[in-house]
Amino acid sequence: MHVTLVHVHVKPEAVEAFMEACRKNHEQSVREPGNRRFDVLRDAAEPNRFVLYEAYACAEDAAAHKQTDHYRKWRDTVADMMAEPRKGVGYLGLYPA
Amino acid sequence: MHVTLVHVHVKPEAVEAFMEACRKNHEQSVREPGNRRFDVLRDAAEPNRFVLYEAYACAEDAAAHKQTDHYRKWRDTVADMMAEPRKGVGYLGLYPA
Repeated sequence: MHVTLVHVHVKPEAVEAFMEACRKNHEQSVREPGNRRFDVLRDAAEPNRFVLYEAYACAEDAAAHKQTDHYRKWRDTVADMMAEPRKGVGYLGLYPA
Repeated sequence: MHVTLVHVHVKPEAVEAFMEACRKNHEQSVREPGNRRFDVLRDAAEPNRFVLYEAYACAEDAAAHKQTDHYRKWRDTVADMMAEPRKGVGYLGLYPA
């Protein structure tokens, strides 16, 4: 699996709207052919911090996600909600294969 | 979902053995009744760093994992493989519900 953990620090006043935008993105993203996980996580200790756990069968499938309407809508919707630029970290998913 | 991201920095000489121990832990953990994900990730840029993505239906299921033989074997096997203490971060999995 091709995995990205996207760390997002959200402005306090935007947290509810951010979660709603992520819900919509999640619902569409899990329908993409190469998607394996698209989990939206809220930090238990710091509830203005979130992680998107995005796993695709391969790098091409992950790249295709960024061409979708739902990704672009999410990106534009949340652009002004972040307290600092989001940070994506790439991983090779070892298990499951 | 009750989620923990466990960040592990492994000594270079122990990386292969660490991955093998994680493979065995993965194979057993995904069979636990409350398990939703038990993904083993290797950092793409820093290959001695790993993340275990552990998701359970609820906190009780996550706690039960730590009582299993396969968890205890993993814990003891990898104890001397780490370059620094591992760090677990807790999350509430928002989506999927």
